[in-house]
Amino acid sequence: MPRQRKKPERTLRSICPAAAALDLIGDRWTLLVLRDVLLFGKRHFHEFQASPEHISTNTLSQRLRRLEAAGVLERRVYQVHPERCEYHATAKGRDLAPVLRELVLWGARHVPGVAKPTRAQLRAFETNSGS
Amino acid sequence: MPRQRKKPERTLRSICPAAAALDLIGDRWTLLVLRDVLLFGKRHFHEFQASPEHISTNTLSQRLRRLEAAGVLERRVYQVHPERCEYHATAKGRDLAPVLRELVLWGARHVPGVAKPTRAQLRAFETNSGS
Repeated sequence: MPRQRKKPERTLRSICPAAAALDLIGDRWTLLVLRDVLLFGKRHFHEFQASPEHISTNTLSQRLRRLEAAGVLERRVYQVHPERCEYHATAKGRDLAPVLRELVLWGARHVPGVAKPTRAQLRAFETNSGS
Repeated sequence: MPRQRKKPERTLRSICPAAAALDLIGDRWTLLVLRDVLLFGKRHFHEFQASPEHISTNTLSQRLRRLEAAGVLERRVYQVHPERCEYHATAKGRDLAPVLRELVLWGARHVPGVAKPTRAQLRAFETNSGS
């Protein structure tokens, strides 16, 4: 991979790559939006809102803006009047699939009462089906 | 793995295992404490405080209590007057190593300015060196 010389957009807490990743996705909601995109093929605001965790409008707006600014999601306007857009995972976003996959495996193993992932779902993480 | 029938300690947001995992570790700090235990062999409160991200005393206390309550860390009292304790990862905690590993790999690939993990560090995640 090419050596990255781009100036960081914000101050890093440390040079630890895990800390830097958590600065972007270290909250209860961001990876669930990514899950919806990568695993369930969701593209639209109302689809994310329809997920069973009932994300609030404000939280969802804020997370989508942040993920777009970070280059994890790409926002594509497909209608101008009224404006309608959809969200797609970028390569940077698809690279988060393994994080999500390991979270799913850990939750399924250790938290009572959750659903076990199907093989097809785990395969979807491996093939990064979010473009 | 045996089917888990234990009653959940708290209400789940959904049956999604990723959501359940994020309810415990979905914040900017929890996985950094785990990193310190699993990767750097830290055991003591003051060692966690000495990490370069400068976690606050309150945040660290709260996270350690939560991780202990969730069975991710085990608190061992090794001196009574004055009380001194150390923290060890349980099997449930060591099972979070792959999540941390993927976060490290993603951060190292996509965030400019962070350190690249060494092979020894990546191996440490694989062998779950936290007991």
